[in-house]
Amino acid sequence: MLKNPIIETMMNRKSIRKYSDKLPSNEELTTIVQAGQQAPFAYQLCSVLLSRKKNKNPFGSPWLFTICLDANRLEKIMAQRNWKVASNDIAFLIFGIQDASLMAENMVIAAESLGLGSCFIGSTPYIAKSIIKKYKLPKRVFPIVQLTMGYPAEDPTTRPRYPLEFTLFEDKYPEFDENIINKAMTEMDEGYLDQEYYRCANFMIPLEGDRKETFDFTNYSWTEHISRKAGQWDPFPDDLVEQLAACGFHIPVKQNKYNEN
Amino acid sequence: MLKNPIIETMMNRKSIRKYSDKLPSNEELTTIVQAGQQAPFAYQLCSVLLSRKKNKNPFGSPWLFTICLDANRLEKIMAQRNWKVASNDIAFLIFGIQDASLMAENMVIAAESLGLGSCFIGSTPYIAKSIIKKYKLPKRVFPIVQLTMGYPAEDPTTRPRYPLEFTLFEDKYPEFDENIINKAMTEMDEGYLDQEYYRCANFMIPLEGDRKETFDFTNYSWTEHISRKAGQWDPFPDDLVEQLAACGFHIPVKQNKYNEN
Repeated sequence: MLKNPIIETMMNRKSIRKYSDKLPSNEELTTIVQAGQQAPFAYQLCSVLLSRKKNKNPFGSPWLFTICLDANRLEKIMAQRNWKVASNDIAFLIFGIQDASLMAENMVIAAESLGLGSCFIGSTPYIAKSIIKKYKLPKRVFPIVQLTMGYPAEDPTTRPRYPLEFTLFEDKYPEFDENIINKAMTEMDEGYLDQEYYRCANFMIPLEGDRKETFDFTNYSWTEHISRKAGQWDPFPDDLVEQLAACGFHIPVKQNKYNEN
Repeated sequence: MLKNPIIETMMNRKSIRKYSDKLPSNEELTTIVQAGQQAPFAYQLCSVLLSRKKNKNPFGSPWLFTICLDANRLEKIMAQRNWKVASNDIAFLIFGIQDASLMAENMVIAAESLGLGSCFIGSTPYIAKSIIKKYKLPKRVFPIVQLTMGYPAEDPTTRPRYPLEFTLFEDKYPEFDENIINKAMTEMDEGYLDQEYYRCANFMIPLEGDRKETFDFTNYSWTEHISRKAGQWDPFPDDLVEQLAACGFHIPVKQNKYNEN
């Protein structure tokens, strides 16, 4: 693998959940957000809210960013030009989530380069309604992801990833045999077990229904963890659809067509 | 604004649409994709297809990446653990597009750091069905964005962005007055006019219906361009919903609820 300061910064990134008392500067703030803005966009469909209420932010981080899919600014500009939006909301969702994520990733890497750490809060779309209240969001602004940021007070190891051969495919998506699936599972699971990740977090997702627990912290790891999430959580889209609608994005789905996979 | 090699790499990024004949190496390839993999994920819901068919790739780029929301690998792993997916497809869309975009942005910046350039092809979700054929995608893999990459044979200027005050908001999303909207429009429009962007591309989006053309390349710029896109294109989600369904993601919307904004 080739190395340079940029590649090394990316390869060393890890989520930071403990922050030092040292407050980052305003110049660091504007640098990080402007680096975020320079990501490749089609519509610039994202905006960023900041809270410096350290005692209320997750992990007591000095900064909490809420990165939003923002169609409000576009619509305000279009009104000045005598246009109204015609495009549908699924298109806005697909392109706006990309804009917000591209911006967020630049912010994460820019922050790393200045010695700051960060952590994504993935459940953000599920608490959109409370974020509307907190930040007085207008319609057509949907919070995609929250990001804590500040100087780190911990130095965890980087987390494992799938093997490259399970991620990069040339010309044709392969049929996976059990070997490569098991190799990917082993690399993820042993990586997390070596780091005692779930034991240190003291967390296993509880089993629902009739399933009996057969795992403990000697063998509960990443693939079991994500299987329990995707296998148990959030079967119906109602909650997300409602949070989106509260933000003025209408994805009214026919419930009966769900879960036909 | 603070500077370091990483910030400068991000601030200097621009889309490259002309590529040199020099072929990037396999070591550059694996470095870039592995840097992409190290982005912050919840589920690692993305995979990457590569085509090196230079004469078929957009702009004749040596590499064309197709970055996909990939639930197939997760489901294969879950099957090994005796689980089936319960989570709904809107959740997969929201979290998978994030994973794919975070990975894509790391790849873009890693490439820049090695002297390579890139360009996003934003229309990718609309051609999902043809991508299925080309790369033999299994169900539950949806192409989010394509990315051309190679050594640049042009050196365009960076493109303008909204003013920071139109993007970063502290504690409360503001009510915009006309001044800030007009300032944002002016910065975008004059920036693109100074670069003669649309004149050089020789492209204005044609007006539909009864609207009469009143623009030429002396005043047609970014805000008019995006207004014409969002104001005319893609009013109904049918096409995207169909492309998603072809990939095994079911977002069956009630059409009559659309465009109520």
